[in-house]
Amino acid sequence: MPLLVRAVLFDVFGTVVDWRSSMFAEINDVKFTKNIAVDVEKFIDSWRAAYRQGMADMRAGKSEKMSNRMVYRTALQHLLNEHLNEYFTDDELDHLSRIDHRYHPWPDSIPGLTRLKKKLITGTLSNGTSVALINMAKNAGLPWDVIFSTDMLGIHKPAPKAYLTAVKLLGLDPEHVILAAAHNQDLKAARAVGLKTAFICRPTEFGPYQEKDTTAEGPWDFITNSVEELADQLGT
Amino acid sequence: MPLLVRAVLFDVFGTVVDWRSSMFAEINDVKFTKNIAVDVEKFIDSWRAAYRQGMADMRAGKSEKMSNRMVYRTALQHLLNEHLNEYFTDDELDHLSRIDHRYHPWPDSIPGLTRLKKKLITGTLSNGTSVALINMAKNAGLPWDVIFSTDMLGIHKPAPKAYLTAVKLLGLDPEHVILAAAHNQDLKAARAVGLKTAFICRPTEFGPYQEKDTTAEGPWDFITNSVEELADQLGT
Repeated sequence: MPLLVRAVLFDVFGTVVDWRSSMFAEINDVKFTKNIAVDVEKFIDSWRAAYRQGMADMRAGKSEKMSNRMVYRTALQHLLNEHLNEYFTDDELDHLSRIDHRYHPWPDSIPGLTRLKKKLITGTLSNGTSVALINMAKNAGLPWDVIFSTDMLGIHKPAPKAYLTAVKLLGLDPEHVILAAAHNQDLKAARAVGLKTAFICRPTEFGPYQEKDTTAEGPWDFITNSVEELADQLGT
Repeated sequence: MPLLVRAVLFDVFGTVVDWRSSMFAEINDVKFTKNIAVDVEKFIDSWRAAYRQGMADMRAGKSEKMSNRMVYRTALQHLLNEHLNEYFTDDELDHLSRIDHRYHPWPDSIPGLTRLKKKLITGTLSNGTSVALINMAKNAGLPWDVIFSTDMLGIHKPAPKAYLTAVKLLGLDPEHVILAAAHNQDLKAARAVGLKTAFICRPTEFGPYQEKDTTAEGPWDFITNSVEELADQLGT
């Protein structure tokens, strides 16, 4: 099968970048620089929850339309108003709300992608925005051949059309494209529309007490612990 | 002004790659390998004309829907049936109809893009398809941060929305984005919606007797003879 594969599309958040440790490091830094009392782990969870709520409210028409980044920034600001009022300038809030441009890859991501890229098309298929994915790739040096984002395709995973639109833009058939992800639900949806699947186990994505996605839960074509292992299995 | 620029989007065919010389070299090669009598220059013109006609017919509903590549291949096949029947296998036709995956960059393109990429987001904004742009970038080593194609955005230049959609996906305002192109009409359309403009003069894009686009015909922000010169002017 490896010889028939022509492209690998990656989920990004959790699969390629370690968003939680990246957030922890940066927010922890801010905590000490600003000398403020905050539980960084709880802060991360609250921020993510507020962002998700903000997005849901916007989609349901309960709040005005704004960019994803503004939802992220608004959530941050509410959180800071509650906990840490008056510690931050506008520029600092702007900078902090672009924290997703600065997420670090897992240690195996760049070596693995660099190997895969020699023989295959490597791209993203993420529910993140173009802005985040482009800037993240640039800051971290992720060597994508192509970036497919939710706002570029106009649709979210796990909708079947999200996978099929990307495959069509590659000019390939689904069986020649692998979706690589750390999340079983993502792989299940990709497999249902004919893509090959690669599970990349990231058991600490959500911190040390992660309960979800700690093992492969489907008949995935490749089951690995890193992007480098996927490169091994694909002979690249 | 250079300091405010955050991204440069490039027209590709003619601006970044020398499609005509690339076609000439490959078709000339085929001519000698197959030992067939054909005027290569005329063949290139006929193929392009047949492709354009094929696309126009399809858009007007006069022929069945197919991918751009199939239009390209069908045009090639008609042309070969007329001139060179029975010289080619199906695989050879397939290969030849993907000639646009193998276009060569102008000598200054990769050095210039590599320099620009250090400080700015570099991307394509092309009426070509994703398939052609991704494979061309991979074969030639064009170091794009992002590829915007006509089938990704669902719209063609010079429609204002083509430029503005790309700018929006970058999360920027138009005045922070340069459109770089060898074609005055493209720059005119980009300028009309607020982008900065860079003319890259390619006076032999259409061969030695080119009459169009041999000089800058508008108040473009940057007027250059190469991507490297643009890098110079932008201080990268």
